[in-house]
Amino acid sequence: MSKRPLVVIGGSSERSQETMGAFQEFPQVEACRLYSKFSAQPSSIEAIPSIIEKAVRSSIYGRPGACYVDIPAEFVNLEANVNSIKYVECCLPPPVSMAEMSAVFTAASLIRNAKQPLLIIGKGAAYAQAEEEIRKLVERCKLPFLPTPMGKGVVPDSHPNCVAAARSKALQFADVIVLFGARLNWILHFGLPPRYRPDVKFIQVDICAEELGNNVKPAVTLLGDIKAVIRQLLEQFIKAPWQYPPESNWWKTLREKMKSNKASSQELASKKSLPMNYYTVFYHVQEQLPRDCIVVSEGANTMDIGRTVLQNYLPRHRLDAGTFGTMGVGLGFAIAAAMVAKDRNPGQRVICVEGDSAFGFSGMEVETICRYNLPIILLVVNNNGIYQGVDRDSWKEMLKFGDATTMVPPMCLLPNAHYEQVMTAFGGKGYLVQTPEELQESLKQSLMETAKPSLINIIIEPQGARKSQDFHWLTRSNM
Amino acid sequence: MSKRPLVVIGGSSERSQETMGAFQEFPQVEACRLYSKFSAQPSSIEAIPSIIEKAVRSSIYGRPGACYVDIPAEFVNLEANVNSIKYVECCLPPPVSMAEMSAVFTAASLIRNAKQPLLIIGKGAAYAQAEEEIRKLVERCKLPFLPTPMGKGVVPDSHPNCVAAARSKALQFADVIVLFGARLNWILHFGLPPRYRPDVKFIQVDICAEELGNNVKPAVTLLGDIKAVIRQLLEQFIKAPWQYPPESNWWKTLREKMKSNKASSQELASKKSLPMNYYTVFYHVQEQLPRDCIVVSEGANTMDIGRTVLQNYLPRHRLDAGTFGTMGVGLGFAIAAAMVAKDRNPGQRVICVEGDSAFGFSGMEVETICRYNLPIILLVVNNNGIYQGVDRDSWKEMLKFGDATTMVPPMCLLPNAHYEQVMTAFGGKGYLVQTPEELQESLKQSLMETAKPSLINIIIEPQGARKSQDFHWLTRSNM
Amino acid sequence: MSKRPLVVIGGSSERSQETMGAFQEFPQVEACRLYSKFSAQPSSIEAIPSIIEKAVRSSIYGRPGACYVDIPAEFVNLEANVNSIKYVECCLPPPVSMAEMSAVFTAASLIRNAKQPLLIIGKGAAYAQAEEEIRKLVERCKLPFLPTPMGKGVVPDSHPNCVAAARSKALQFADVIVLFGARLNWILHFGLPPRYRPDVKFIQVDICAEELGNNVKPAVTLLGDIKAVIRQLLEQFIKAPWQYPPESNWWKTLREKMKSNKASSQELASKKSLPMNYYTVFYHVQEQLPRDCIVVSEGANTMDIGRTVLQNYLPRHRLDAGTFGTMGVGLGFAIAAAMVAKDRNPGQRVICVEGDSAFGFSGMEVETICRYNLPIILLVVNNNGIYQGVDRDSWKEMLKFGDATTMVPPMCLLPNAHYEQVMTAFGGKGYLVQTPEELQESLKQSLMETAKPSLINIIIEPQGARKSQDFHWLTRSNM
Amino acid sequence: MSKRPLVVIGGSSERSQETMGAFQEFPQVEACRLYSKFSAQPSSIEAIPSIIEKAVRSSIYGRPGACYVDIPAEFVNLEANVNSIKYVECCLPPPVSMAEMSAVFTAASLIRNAKQPLLIIGKGAAYAQAEEEIRKLVERCKLPFLPTPMGKGVVPDSHPNCVAAARSKALQFADVIVLFGARLNWILHFGLPPRYRPDVKFIQVDICAEELGNNVKPAVTLLGDIKAVIRQLLEQFIKAPWQYPPESNWWKTLREKMKSNKASSQELASKKSLPMNYYTVFYHVQEQLPRDCIVVSEGANTMDIGRTVLQNYLPRHRLDAGTFGTMGVGLGFAIAAAMVAKDRNPGQRVICVEGDSAFGFSGMEVETICRYNLPIILLVVNNNGIYQGVDRDSWKEMLKFGDATTMVPPMCLLPNAHYEQVMTAFGGKGYLVQTPEELQESLKQSLMETAKPSLINIIIEPQGARKSQDFHWLTRSNM
Repeated sequence: MSKRPLVVIGGSSERSQETMGAFQEFPQVEACRLYSKFSAQPSSIEAIPSIIEKAVRSSIYGRPGACYVDIPAEFVNLEANVNSIKYVECCLPPPVSMAEMSAVFTAASLIRNAKQPLLIIGKGAAYAQAEEEIRKLVERCKLPFLPTPMGKGVVPDSHPNCVAAARSKALQFADVIVLFGARLNWILHFGLPPRYRPDVKFIQVDICAEELGNNVKPAVTLLGDIKAVIRQLLEQFIKAPWQYPPESNWWKTLREKMKSNKASSQELASKKSLPMNYYTVFYHVQEQLPRDCIVVSEGANTMDIGRTVLQNYLPRHRLDAGTFGTMGVGLGFAIAAAMVAKDRNPGQRVICVEGDSAFGFSGMEVETICRYNLPIILLVVNNNGIYQGVDRDSWKEMLKFGDATTMVPPMCLLPNAHYEQVMTAFGGKGYLVQTPEELQESLKQSLMETAKPSLINIIIEPQGARKSQDFHWLTRSNM
Repeated sequence: MSKRPLVVIGGSSERSQETMGAFQEFPQVEACRLYSKFSAQPSSIEAIPSIIEKAVRSSIYGRPGACYVDIPAEFVNLEANVNSIKYVECCLPPPVSMAEMSAVFTAASLIRNAKQPLLIIGKGAAYAQAEEEIRKLVERCKLPFLPTPMGKGVVPDSHPNCVAAARSKALQFADVIVLFGARLNWILHFGLPPRYRPDVKFIQVDICAEELGNNVKPAVTLLGDIKAVIRQLLEQFIKAPWQYPPESNWWKTLREKMKSNKASSQELASKKSLPMNYYTVFYHVQEQLPRDCIVVSEGANTMDIGRTVLQNYLPRHRLDAGTFGTMGVGLGFAIAAAMVAKDRNPGQRVICVEGDSAFGFSGMEVETICRYNLPIILLVVNNNGIYQGVDRDSWKEMLKFGDATTMVPPMCLLPNAHYEQVMTAFGGKGYLVQTPEELQESLKQSLMETAKPSLINIIIEPQGARKSQDFHWLTRSNM
Repeated sequence: MSKRPLVVIGGSSERSQETMGAFQEFPQVEACRLYSKFSAQPSSIEAIPSIIEKAVRSSIYGRPGACYVDIPAEFVNLEANVNSIKYVECCLPPPVSMAEMSAVFTAASLIRNAKQPLLIIGKGAAYAQAEEEIRKLVERCKLPFLPTPMGKGVVPDSHPNCVAAARSKALQFADVIVLFGARLNWILHFGLPPRYRPDVKFIQVDICAEELGNNVKPAVTLLGDIKAVIRQLLEQFIKAPWQYPPESNWWKTLREKMKSNKASSQELASKKSLPMNYYTVFYHVQEQLPRDCIVVSEGANTMDIGRTVLQNYLPRHRLDAGTFGTMGVGLGFAIAAAMVAKDRNPGQRVICVEGDSAFGFSGMEVETICRYNLPIILLVVNNNGIYQGVDRDSWKEMLKFGDATTMVPPMCLLPNAHYEQVMTAFGGKGYLVQTPEELQESLKQSLMETAKPSLINIIIEPQGARKSQDFHWLTRSNM
Repeated sequence: MSKRPLVVIGGSSERSQETMGAFQEFPQVEACRLYSKFSAQPSSIEAIPSIIEKAVRSSIYGRPGACYVDIPAEFVNLEANVNSIKYVECCLPPPVSMAEMSAVFTAASLIRNAKQPLLIIGKGAAYAQAEEEIRKLVERCKLPFLPTPMGKGVVPDSHPNCVAAARSKALQFADVIVLFGARLNWILHFGLPPRYRPDVKFIQVDICAEELGNNVKPAVTLLGDIKAVIRQLLEQFIKAPWQYPPESNWWKTLREKMKSNKASSQELASKKSLPMNYYTVFYHVQEQLPRDCIVVSEGANTMDIGRTVLQNYLPRHRLDAGTFGTMGVGLGFAIAAAMVAKDRNPGQRVICVEGDSAFGFSGMEVETICRYNLPIILLVVNNNGIYQGVDRDSWKEMLKFGDATTMVPPMCLLPNAHYEQVMTAFGGKGYLVQTPEELQESLKQSLMETAKPSLINIIIEPQGARKSQDFHWLTRSNM
């Protein structure tokens, strides 16, 4: 399975009209610089192949990233002499590097001596296609692990060693943490107290040297291709087998916390009151989720809570708004994923779980979905707002005091929005569901082999609270 | 009527977390620099008022433009001592400058001696609120004029001196052209042959010194507030009255060309065949368009052809994709216009004329329209594509040879898209119209006093050609 | 006298080698954007003339500023068809705009009613070549005025109405201040208390709309070409003559302060102790300074104190480090000024007054001065340091405690530096002067008609204090 | 020996005055972005340590590079609570990564099978401190090698396997080239024909993934710390010893070419005519150059020819204008090198070899050199110009036809410039030398233990030609 480059090709105005006020004249290469690893305009038609090669290569070599290539308008209709084109071959697969052995020894030793170890699996591990190696490490050493949002599925969420259900506890009390391609950014609370022990020892495994040591001073750093480095670690544990005692207090603590957290979730999920709450919704979605589906998600609570309930079993099968939290990416992600899936794995579904606000950014892409008849099921988890909305009755009450432009709080969206009709407008199938039974039935129909693209508009309680947290600081930034 | 500032307030991550991987950490002030006249982050809460003042002032002083102010996240919850806040008063109204008298004399003399004069009214004239002055000049001197897309309505399109229907001819043969706040960019073909006489004399009136002389060497330049400068010109023609002979050959030529162009349009408009063509659609829309409505438009043919048929009678009542041709701006423009109109002129309507492709960029904003119950009528002129689509039968035919992802040309959109349902999904009124009669009726209903927001999905012929042009180069850039 | 454009032409690497690691490959147009009004690379040899025209025009139209044009290496040796070159004529002279009459009336009325008026003449007035108009205004209305550093000479410093010698007092107590092309930046203490009365009324006259209202809310703004606007003001005082009473208390206060300040300076200047102090030096320089010489200056105390003693009698005859305070500009400025002067006014001298630290930035340009035999006299006012140095004995003492790299404070330069030898090294004339008599004699020789380029190394007391100020805040930022 | 970070600390204006026109107000962090790996301003005094840590770490982790930290003016005098400062420890030494074994095997195999192998040692190898490993590889395998300008000395230039004297031949006919930290940029002619065989196999060893595959498709890439990777390669040749036959035709060809090139150089060097030529000068300099001196160089011919004659025996002991060819860096480099050498290796000398034009950029730094009494010997190789100057007689002849500003070609500098006096002006020792004997004597004196800083102004023939090349394309870019 090869790496997939991410190169954006843009069109710019004719170069001969630059500075004259050409149509859409703008310094696009310059404007894209802050957003890309490589941003360039070929100087001539002849140079296009080599610039594309550089963009493709830059995008997959080292830490992967998006690249931009700018094509001036006049190139579209220009003719070039075939012989003057500098054809270039596709680049070699990305070079693979390994950690130095002394660092591997140190890391292995730290793990062996950890009292409360924890592995964190980041999206770097997913990009590195290190799933087999990480699973072996987890199982051979019996270590608890935690995925980051985009690291979900590298080892299945259902794996008994996954302690995602005790995430805060695991982070807070681990004494040795191994980061596989996971940055210590806001998602991991910068690696700092009070979310971590002040004396926690970090073992950082990353492809990017400059990422190592960011925000904390790690105990040891392993620079290299994550897959290759884990193989080096594994060798240590094969040569001198070791496993973390499954009956340790740490495992007990984590298991108890997972149990109690799962019980709370379960309790919320099994609530019969209507409108449904987030947990009820995700519980029923999870029940029918095909193991090989690709889950795309964006939103605030929808993305956060959905992430804890919806399971990933396969690597690189979850796409969400990520580090930047950019709303509006969901449908684009889903379409791209469906285009890839369609050829690679016919029958595979993309489940796109959207908050209603998030859906509002790019919901019109349902036209694209229907145009290409893509195997996408959109779930709009609809609470009439961002974080919190109001119900129809409160809305009407509100409007007694003034018109909507003055009365409606900025976080509220229209109640009774029929998002499912945005799908039916383009010939897809739409469902409005208000009960668990309706949700189950609509999912079942959407997943039938011959189903069209569909959108399930799931009405939930507008003021639906999240699961309460042990510490007040857990509610602020919660992945 | 005061000038309206355009200041975008953005939120950025906590400054204390900068470089740590904060949530949505990005150098936003830097990223906005290329797009704004002024881009800054206040250094403290105390500095917010003065930074806002600078942004507001920069946005309306000199050539107007958008400004960006960045508020770091921690400011939202920070408390400040009221006494330490540096309050600042709102700035004075924009300063007004005038042209030097010698330039005014030269300009007046050039106009008096012109054999084939032409005035071009640009959006700068609209921003300068120079409508009364320009109308007086046109009428006193009996001069033919042409509005640019956003200059429409400064003098009503219906004015007998408006030669928009003979635009190409007027540009091509004028010997003296006065530009009122109109740039010689691609929209005006850079002021160069063959679209203009090589010896045409330009009189440039603009608020921006650096704009003067761009792409051509003008005969004379008048720098200053456009309204004030036109007053200076008017004075010349009051002191020594003069008018351009209404029976000149130039007027005859223009009137004949307008007549023949209008006849062609009329012929297209009166075609009875179905699906309708652009001209038929706009003819019927024009018939019911309230005189005081604000017309918003975006699209390719929809915007171009619509501009020639739909009349503006008031200044600053037309918003379109403009110089940049950015698709996706339509609904945002419509919402902003409706918010302004609502308070200033209850009952005023915003008519948003969208190509189907353009609507696809931000169509989800109908939720916002319905949420705030805004007086907006959306017309989606639906040809199943960008420039050209295909009809349902051809589509089906196409799919016999492969699936949509491989067979559908990039410019084609889904046939039979029910855009009107995107509106009904949120409680607005939706219409699907296929005949002139249906179009008339739906418009009538949408314009009723008590009408909700509405969307009229107007089916037109997918391969609908434009009016043929006299010269092949007229079809390329056609604004 | 026409406006002088400032366009920098840079060379960049071959475009066909871009992204390949070409010699000096760098995005130069992008890198120059922050520093210039216009930054562009012609897309072809054919486009060079029009890009140069745009750069020249941008540099002199509106607020003047530097522009950058980037020429790729391959253009140097490329051949182009003469017929394909788009020749463009030189642009028209900069457009002139005037203030609206109501603002002129308001301004005139404010001036008439001022109790303690003050004019501030900025470099904008110098650029606008408004010297004649300002002098007339000053003399007709008997108003006190103050030049900014680069505004010196627009009206001669020796003019009886110049109150530069009472600068702080004038700023602090004026009730109406007219700014002619002077920004309220740090040089003018932002126009804020305690350096100004809280209720001072500013009348801003500027060519740049966005500059108006910066940091303070002015009483009235006059946007336009400064020369033209002053003519408008003058007309008011011609139509209805008025003059500010020469025997007012304000004039008395200012004259007294000037007298006492001049006395302090004079006292310092007449000190016989050696080494000399700044005032002694500048007093003797001033005595021999030709009235028409161009004074260039940079340094800290040297520039600040020199500015108060050295008189300018002609506009645009003083160049200093200006708003940015960039050290190292002096010799470049002197060379440019000499190149202009040489042709325009043979015999004219450039006097370049350098602090020793400032001279260290670009002193090697004496080679250029000697190569072209330019009429430049360099004065290095040498106190062995930045702000303060130490003398040779203290230096030796210091080195007893360690080597120079550890002992020498960062602000100290080498004592006994023979800067004059940097000049003699290239065939110019060098003088080392330690007494007023030596200074007089060396100046006399340097100013002789047949003199070569020369450098006078003037030894002053290393710990030389400045004149004490009435208020502690006067020592911090002192123009 | 640890890695040396390169962090520039800049001062910016007070943040509270931002947008007000503060002294030297400028978006410095933004302006430095294009030039640095990391550019940031600490958000508070408290954040300074962590920002400095990030800058230091970024500068030495991964591919080394300069970083910028911006300190606002108000921080200088602000007080902070010691307890609120976030102290951070210095980062770990840079992480070390290795190549994957399969790539190492491939590389070793390619080397073993090469018919005409060549190693190129770049500055990346110097930065990686890989000297011992490379020397072992060279000697064990008997391979010819070539250093890049900044790679000189990693293995001594005097090593018998160094084929620098046959550089063009070696590049042109090698069939397998191993690049150790050398980029295929303009200095290595992009790795393309005609300077290389079309079928040459590149083995790229680099710390930077994105550099691999640039401009050519390599046969194999080894990503990692260069020192560690060479150890991996060495292991292969230890396990299975192999050496390249010293009597191969390739070695014969290279040795013959070296011999003939050295003969030509020798012939030029031994010319008795005066003024001297470059080769004579460098020959005599080389004779007295201490083995452990640091050679700094800049200029055009001076740097190019000097590089071929002056030998480096130690790694990281040569600094030149490098990839960017930035003139003016020489004296700054020399001062920095001297500051480092002074403490590490008392008695060590810095030899700074400057073209006369290059010296003109920053020659005033001799004041700094003398101030700190630094062990620097400056050689100014003086041909009165850039590439070519004219002698004094021709100069005088020239001036008969007009003054210098019109007659002197842009590449000519003043003849008879006494650069040595720029040194004596500050108390150092200056020599003007015109003959080999004078050069020898002045060098001898400058190298005496007790010598002061010195400058030797070496007069050479102004029109001095370079050694002729076999191919015309060898004269263009010649490093």
